[in-house]
Amino acid sequence: MRTRNVKGASEKIADNPNLIITDPLQYKGKWSNFFGNDNPIHIEIGMGKGQFIYQLAKRNPDINYIGIERFDNIIVRALEKQIEAKLDNLVLVRFDASDIRDFFRLNEVDGIYLNFSDPWPKARHEKRRLTSSEFLARYRHILTKSGAVYMKTDNQSLFEFSLESFSVNNWTIKNISLDLHNSDIEGNVMTEYEEKFSTKGNRIYRLEAMMKR
Amino acid sequence: MRTRNVKGASEKIADNPNLIITDPLQYKGKWSNFFGNDNPIHIEIGMGKGQFIYQLAKRNPDINYIGIERFDNIIVRALEKQIEAKLDNLVLVRFDASDIRDFFRLNEVDGIYLNFSDPWPKARHEKRRLTSSEFLARYRHILTKSGAVYMKTDNQSLFEFSLESFSVNNWTIKNISLDLHNSDIEGNVMTEYEEKFSTKGNRIYRLEAMMKR
Repeated sequence: MRTRNVKGASEKIADNPNLIITDPLQYKGKWSNFFGNDNPIHIEIGMGKGQFIYQLAKRNPDINYIGIERFDNIIVRALEKQIEAKLDNLVLVRFDASDIRDFFRLNEVDGIYLNFSDPWPKARHEKRRLTSSEFLARYRHILTKSGAVYMKTDNQSLFEFSLESFSVNNWTIKNISLDLHNSDIEGNVMTEYEEKFSTKGNRIYRLEAMMKR
Repeated sequence: MRTRNVKGASEKIADNPNLIITDPLQYKGKWSNFFGNDNPIHIEIGMGKGQFIYQLAKRNPDINYIGIERFDNIIVRALEKQIEAKLDNLVLVRFDASDIRDFFRLNEVDGIYLNFSDPWPKARHEKRRLTSSEFLARYRHILTKSGAVYMKTDNQSLFEFSLESFSVNNWTIKNISLDLHNSDIEGNVMTEYEEKFSTKGNRIYRLEAMMKR
């Protein structure tokens, strides 16, 4: 992904170590200590500019949120929201979450959000999709027994791939919508991308997946 | 479902007992005897006017096909095709397939086709949908270990329901298409209904489901 250069992004990140973490490995197994409570931990992988997780953190003060994004030029927009709001139950992580087990231990996470992830359309890049078998095995490791993955995308091929991948890897799929914005599902919080693309008439696909044990 | 009255339908059915069976219970466990060979048996539940299963039977002489439909006024159109063609590997069954175990024994069937089934949209009619938990338990009984259900529909809600139902009931879902007529999946055989409704721009949804054992 190419990103537009944002002047001063790296400096702003370096200046706010309490709001944005760039060395998350040291918190593995210690996120409850970090937040100072035992509330459930929900994470968003590929948070983008942060509107989604920021809204969720405001709505749900009894859940701790961790937003993960690897690009300085994008995460800085989430950081700007958090500099304003300083929500106690939200922290940002600037890191490449390619192996999420590096910074979450077994059963440490209660919910994983995947919103409009990169579809990696070429077959040879299948493993890079955030719902590939490789990634699902990592989620299985870090999620609690009752934990779930919540996915939204406007990419039809990625959604077809994901339905199959969850099914083949022994997850139960629920609350599927093949057209979220014209469905009965309430309380949807939109990402920046979702606001932009759904107004063009793109369908938004949605699912939840839980592990069979 | 209301059907248009077809003059002479019942008489035509009664006149062709070799091509259309109205008392299938007596063949339970004996379908291979009926066909006179051990070829795999594929069935279509709610066959309609028969174009789909008739095309499949022509293409695949080494598979035995059983087309099931409960309405005289509809199945008579399939019968007319079969009176012309007299395919050895196709038989029609005029019967209400509400409990398919009444006329197939354990592991007797290798494939089940569900094409554009009645969506039964009201929640209180959920059990009547051909992909409800109740129906899936019956399919699990009559299918061989490697058997599969092949479903097509243009009804978004029925497809969402079906994805969840297969998943919750421990089937693996594969070869999903959320827009079959604009997909890479080759060799699709269209039903009469599909020809009519896809020209109006309706999306056709498609899946295969196999049992986890």
